[in-house]
Amino acid sequence: MNSEAQLIKRITAAIPSETGAHGRALNRNAVSLGIGDDAAVISPNGKTDWVLSCDAFLEGIHFLSKTYPPDSVGYKSLARATSDLAAVGATPKLFLLTLALPADRTGDWLEGFLRGMGRAARNLGVRLLGGDTTKFPLVSISITVAGKIEKGRAVARSGARPGDLIYVSDTLGRAQLGLELMQNRLGKTARYRRLLQPHLYPKIRLQLGAWLARQRLATAMMDLSDGLSSDLARLCDSSKVGARLFENRIPRVRIPADSKLAKFKLDSLQMALHGGEDYELLFTVSPNTRTELRSAPGFKELVSIGEITREKRILLETADGRTQPLRIRGWDSFRIAQPSENA
Amino acid sequence: MNSEAQLIKRITAAIPSETGAHGRALNRNAVSLGIGDDAAVISPNGKTDWVLSCDAFLEGIHFLSKTYPPDSVGYKSLARATSDLAAVGATPKLFLLTLALPADRTGDWLEGFLRGMGRAARNLGVRLLGGDTTKFPLVSISITVAGKIEKGRAVARSGARPGDLIYVSDTLGRAQLGLELMQNRLGKTARYRRLLQPHLYPKIRLQLGAWLARQRLATAMMDLSDGLSSDLARLCDSSKVGARLFENRIPRVRIPADSKLAKFKLDSLQMALHGGEDYELLFTVSPNTRTELRSAPGFKELVSIGEITREKRILLETADGRTQPLRIRGWDSFRIAQPSENA
Repeated sequence: MNSEAQLIKRITAAIPSETGAHGRALNRNAVSLGIGDDAAVISPNGKTDWVLSCDAFLEGIHFLSKTYPPDSVGYKSLARATSDLAAVGATPKLFLLTLALPADRTGDWLEGFLRGMGRAARNLGVRLLGGDTTKFPLVSISITVAGKIEKGRAVARSGARPGDLIYVSDTLGRAQLGLELMQNRLGKTARYRRLLQPHLYPKIRLQLGAWLARQRLATAMMDLSDGLSSDLARLCDSSKVGARLFENRIPRVRIPADSKLAKFKLDSLQMALHGGEDYELLFTVSPNTRTELRSAPGFKELVSIGEITREKRILLETADGRTQPLRIRGWDSFRIAQPSENA
Repeated sequence: MNSEAQLIKRITAAIPSETGAHGRALNRNAVSLGIGDDAAVISPNGKTDWVLSCDAFLEGIHFLSKTYPPDSVGYKSLARATSDLAAVGATPKLFLLTLALPADRTGDWLEGFLRGMGRAARNLGVRLLGGDTTKFPLVSISITVAGKIEKGRAVARSGARPGDLIYVSDTLGRAQLGLELMQNRLGKTARYRRLLQPHLYPKIRLQLGAWLARQRLATAMMDLSDGLSSDLARLCDSSKVGARLFENRIPRVRIPADSKLAKFKLDSLQMALHGGEDYELLFTVSPNTRTELRSAPGFKELVSIGEITREKRILLETADGRTQPLRIRGWDSFRIAQPSENA
């Protein structure tokens, strides 16, 4: 039998947690009251801003429970939530976890889930501050991440100006390739295993995001969660500008030349333009600061893919020199058919 | 057709929201970046602590979608989340909303839901700071509330000492009575409508909680969400103490003497001891400060129901003078059978 109290013990044993504070100011995050009280208290020092974001990760929508390793569900749900903090340049510190799950997932599945989430928490430098656990017919995870940034340095989506250069932090479409492999039942094929990693255990660009904010280099920034075409449109909309992308500059994933894969007709450009969940950063910089980018963490992977324009539309200049409007075809759970468990 | 962007517009139109900040420090909560950016930024002044808590509200677990008015789902999901802040004495200011719902609830149902949540937000003084919306087969709501409190004043569960008096903020079992009426298909009976209110639209004791924290009167405090027997056990466990309750002091809901209700054999004492979701405050005070309580907001409703003991068990002194251990029979979704849609 599992009571909620027992579940909480297992969760706090597996994940670095703020527990047992009970009224005493504690640690580097200055937390008093943590898990075990109704609410958790943070004591900001007045020199830093705090940044908050929440993110849902849902069975059948964001992952398929029969085919996804539970530790990936734990890892990814936390990683993608912290990516929203990378996206404004903040450093994640703490998180709150709402975990709803069926009673039959409280055994091995939960162990794997917690192992993955614990590993993500250690990799990303965040500690569990509180949460809520409930029984539910489907796994439903919601995570709120809180992080810090020097006052006034958070980067909005709204600061891009005509003439700014548009950068992405690395190759796009990797997560989509992993998803395609999973959906086409190739997830267990040994030689593709490496290609699944970006989909199951995404890397989050915390260092780059924080560096860009600290140096005041990014005029606008966000993370690529729903796909370049969708997300760039949001950035442009927010900044009241347009963009021109150069097709041949867009860094694409290499698809193995392989007869097994060939029949799925995977198109690396389409995956780069519209594939979701890469969690790379999309940011703009003024052209006269581009040389300063050389000191950026992961500079070698940065790619300038286009420029911001005054005209409020997004154009793609193709390899053969034609220019066409970029269609928005990224992820939107309310617009796109939901992946099926049997896909 | 509903895209996520359209949903967000409807949400922010219905609920007081922090929108369009885009890099400028804004308002009394000193928020920069709100809805429309990846994360929201708060700028604490260093004089106050910030308090965070998250809470899930799930279809089939916390409410039944066929019988519950959608505006109650919106109202209650936010109200109960803010109750965790009342429970430590903080004043709620902002909230983040994860809203997962079926596509067929994005019409009238969502309108009602947002109307209820908007009303709760205005009543409780909180503004929407950010969120995440996704399609999902079941309504799954997770809310993180952030609030303020003077530095170091948050009240933990852990400070109760032997000899302290145990108080509740008002009558217990009201929400359970409402739930029983709903479950027994009496929710639409006109003369019971008033009795449903505590279950559907709970009152949250924000003023009392904040006052008790400010006056440093409560040695320990929490809100009654899962029932007195469960929650008092948690407070005692956290404080490493026990308690003695006096049955005849426990303020119970009056059940109408009514042949229709009589057959359900409702027991107001059992409902007061074990019924969940009253969201009254449970707190302890040192006996030598009890007279100071007279200035408390809602003092007339406060009831002293027992005292804290050194011996770590919870006893109930019955009306006939016997003493017996109080059984823990409150709500725990992992322990108790789930309510059925047809119950």
